[in-house]
Amino acid sequence: MFITHGHLDHIGGIPYVIDRIGYPPIFTRRLTAIMIKKRQEEFPHLKPLDIHEVEKEDTIKAGNTRVRFFSVTHTIPDAMGIIIETPYGDLVFTGDLKLDHVDGVPTAEEEKEFAIFKDRKILFLAADSTNVEKAGFSIPESTVKKNMDEIIATTPGRLIIGTFSSQLERLMRMVEQAEKVGRKVLVEGRSMKVNLEIVRHLGLLKVNDKTFIGAESLESLPDSKVLILATGAQGDEFAALMRIAVKTHKHVKIKKNDTIVLSSSIVPGNERSVQKLKDNLSRQGARIIHRDQMDVHASGHANRDETFWIHQKINPRFFMPLHGYHYMLRVHADIAKACGRQENEIVVPDNGAVIEIQDEGQKIVRLKEMAPNSLRLVDGFAIGDMQEVVIRDRTVLAAEGMFVIIATVNPKTGRLRKSPDIISRGFVYLRESQDLLQQARIIIKKTIEDTTKGMQPVNFDYVKNNVTDAVARFLFEKTNKRPIVIPVVLGV
Amino acid sequence: MFITHGHLDHIGGIPYVIDRIGYPPIFTRRLTAIMIKKRQEEFPHLKPLDIHEVEKEDTIKAGNTRVRFFSVTHTIPDAMGIIIETPYGDLVFTGDLKLDHVDGVPTAEEEKEFAIFKDRKILFLAADSTNVEKAGFSIPESTVKKNMDEIIATTPGRLIIGTFSSQLERLMRMVEQAEKVGRKVLVEGRSMKVNLEIVRHLGLLKVNDKTFIGAESLESLPDSKVLILATGAQGDEFAALMRIAVKTHKHVKIKKNDTIVLSSSIVPGNERSVQKLKDNLSRQGARIIHRDQMDVHASGHANRDETFWIHQKINPRFFMPLHGYHYMLRVHADIAKACGRQENEIVVPDNGAVIEIQDEGQKIVRLKEMAPNSLRLVDGFAIGDMQEVVIRDRTVLAAEGMFVIIATVNPKTGRLRKSPDIISRGFVYLRESQDLLQQARIIIKKTIEDTTKGMQPVNFDYVKNNVTDAVARFLFEKTNKRPIVIPVVLGV
Repeated sequence: MFITHGHLDHIGGIPYVIDRIGYPPIFTRRLTAIMIKKRQEEFPHLKPLDIHEVEKEDTIKAGNTRVRFFSVTHTIPDAMGIIIETPYGDLVFTGDLKLDHVDGVPTAEEEKEFAIFKDRKILFLAADSTNVEKAGFSIPESTVKKNMDEIIATTPGRLIIGTFSSQLERLMRMVEQAEKVGRKVLVEGRSMKVNLEIVRHLGLLKVNDKTFIGAESLESLPDSKVLILATGAQGDEFAALMRIAVKTHKHVKIKKNDTIVLSSSIVPGNERSVQKLKDNLSRQGARIIHRDQMDVHASGHANRDETFWIHQKINPRFFMPLHGYHYMLRVHADIAKACGRQENEIVVPDNGAVIEIQDEGQKIVRLKEMAPNSLRLVDGFAIGDMQEVVIRDRTVLAAEGMFVIIATVNPKTGRLRKSPDIISRGFVYLRESQDLLQQARIIIKKTIEDTTKGMQPVNFDYVKNNVTDAVARFLFEKTNKRPIVIPVVLGV
Repeated sequence: MFITHGHLDHIGGIPYVIDRIGYPPIFTRRLTAIMIKKRQEEFPHLKPLDIHEVEKEDTIKAGNTRVRFFSVTHTIPDAMGIIIETPYGDLVFTGDLKLDHVDGVPTAEEEKEFAIFKDRKILFLAADSTNVEKAGFSIPESTVKKNMDEIIATTPGRLIIGTFSSQLERLMRMVEQAEKVGRKVLVEGRSMKVNLEIVRHLGLLKVNDKTFIGAESLESLPDSKVLILATGAQGDEFAALMRIAVKTHKHVKIKKNDTIVLSSSIVPGNERSVQKLKDNLSRQGARIIHRDQMDVHASGHANRDETFWIHQKINPRFFMPLHGYHYMLRVHADIAKACGRQENEIVVPDNGAVIEIQDEGQKIVRLKEMAPNSLRLVDGFAIGDMQEVVIRDRTVLAAEGMFVIIATVNPKTGRLRKSPDIISRGFVYLRESQDLLQQARIIIKKTIEDTTKGMQPVNFDYVKNNVTDAVARFLFEKTNKRPIVIPVVLGV
């Protein structure tokens, strides 16, 4: 198993699959290796991992196959691409990447790194599609760093920066700049603390211990000497920044002249919670700087023109777009065509697709067979296939609630021993629905006794079906809702 | 009640509040009036509405107060702003609006419409904040119409356009253009059909009956002569376009050379479903044109520079931003400051805020009192306050499921009559959890019988509490989940 970099969308699944695939050796670079090990500590029931640290100059033998690496620019140190050598040419996987550039001209370092493909025969490329829909070149991280440097140096009052804990390169730079201009740094958010500890431990971040402060020191420092780094720029309910915004954070309260920088993008699906975050912060009078106003965030993925440049440098015979929704893969395939690939030299995959290069490297084919693939559901301690019936019940319970009927029936007479009990949750507000419940009890009693009349012995399954139908119909007529109706009919 | 225009976010709430506020007369323009009446038909239990059609030149007396109107540019005909005359100056409400303009220069019509404020004393302005975070001027609808005209005229194969049924001006134009270039129009989506019927009935859209076709005619026409207008550009599961995308639509199947235009924005919260829509359409080989590639959609709300222009034309003494999340209101307040308003001449409201202009128009104040305001929950037939307990139960049921225990106890001995029954939904996959259920039964039996030992008479509430605690603890230990545990303990 080869891992390109330490972001959670690339390492987070390891504990959920490693035991199912027989604990293969894992090859990756130093920081990634440590992040994988750190995460593994949360899964004490698993066996230790067999992790091998590699450097980008290394060559690994996997069976008869030689595997090499190359360094790529991303938003975390030690990101790399992977090269698998075959008799018919190299297979190249970029991993997540962007290019370091100045006004659309890649830097000398990028030129040098991508020069390794120049005199090689590249049989196949699989590359990052995340931002291929975006025109031009991505904002270079250097621009963001310059802006953040200036904000940290010149903001008059207290400064709170919300960002991803995985934006490690930027986080490191912000801490260094804070130290340089004499701001003390309070880190709020466990994952951010852990990640900063790791890079300090590795010597990637060299700052003085005294640059970091605890929450108890906040009040003793002038506002202009404080930088708070916080997780939760996505509006996650329990992350530091949201707790600060909704006034449930133990130590940090918003002051009127605080400046808050959201140094992040909005992960699709989080738009409403980020809006709530901004609303709550601005309601308390804080000034907010976000990426629509100034370049305080850059994505780690290449835009269209960078992707074009990468294709030209690697110049593969065959191409498969990776990393992104299907529509993005299609857009990436169009870029490959613009770079000279033919339709039959490109495969746009779906999860589980099996791609074969045939005829000694002359042909790429998507096979009819699919590799086993499905979503794995992590639900409490259970890790497994999605159980449709459980999910379907939850969906109904969430929208309609439940309605349990408990009736005790004299099996000799078929008559109810007492008025039936009803237990309902998530359906209607019971306190204001006594009439409804009373009518439901009458219907239950009547349905059961009509059904059992002359029936000997009582067929309880038949009774249950009848009472379920009658009650479900009644509830729908009265409320336009369809709770899960569960009858318990006991013969006693 | 004065209604500015016929979009659902402005008229949709009427049936839910009109009876609570005593059916006041409603004043609005023609199209809006018809749309309100059409919607009211879905609420047959309500009394007829008292709707008065007005034209923008009219003056209405409401008590002693004169109310006038002005026409505004939005994405639906008959949109208007409202002017309330007071002895101290006019109160102006813009409603939703943008400006018609060419390269940032508002048209002569806009100049003329806004000239009515020139020699008036404007005491107060409340204006649309939806897009004030966006720089410059909005894309003019004329640009979108030009692009859509060209797409309808030149697309070689079949053309499917997804848009909002409320984008009435654009819809009208697209039908007209289709007729002009000889494409037949199939309308898919009930709300879109209804809205097009209304504008044809009012004479706002004048096209031949034969321009519209039914689904049965699809196959008999050449692809290049077909335009399908469909709802569901937001990826709504049951709307026409999504059903087409996931192959559940009765009549329309995607063909490889179809062109699909998403002439819409993405409503916040719908990002993932729109992605799914694009993925499914592109997987079937359709070409997709959306607003990131070409101006095929324009918002109906003014950007920052348009808003600035509106402020300067109306030039109010006091200002209150309206329509938008709190953060947007703050941004709009900053625009008002840039136009010369002072901090104390602006009130940024929250829902329910009561604003008073005092001292004969010298002072604007937000009172401490709040008007009654809360979310109204429409849940089946029930319309009312959010019942926290019902919502909380649904949230738990959705994530953790439920676990009902049924035990029959001999009240004399305190011993179970038989092994307890368990009913569980949405918790774990029961078929693979027989061990868990068996252990739970043992714990239930033991807990009940330990509790009732020597207890005479049996305190059933006490027994229920004990068994709930024991079972909830056991289930959490085993599964890390906390379903709603409901004990039914019957003494028989």
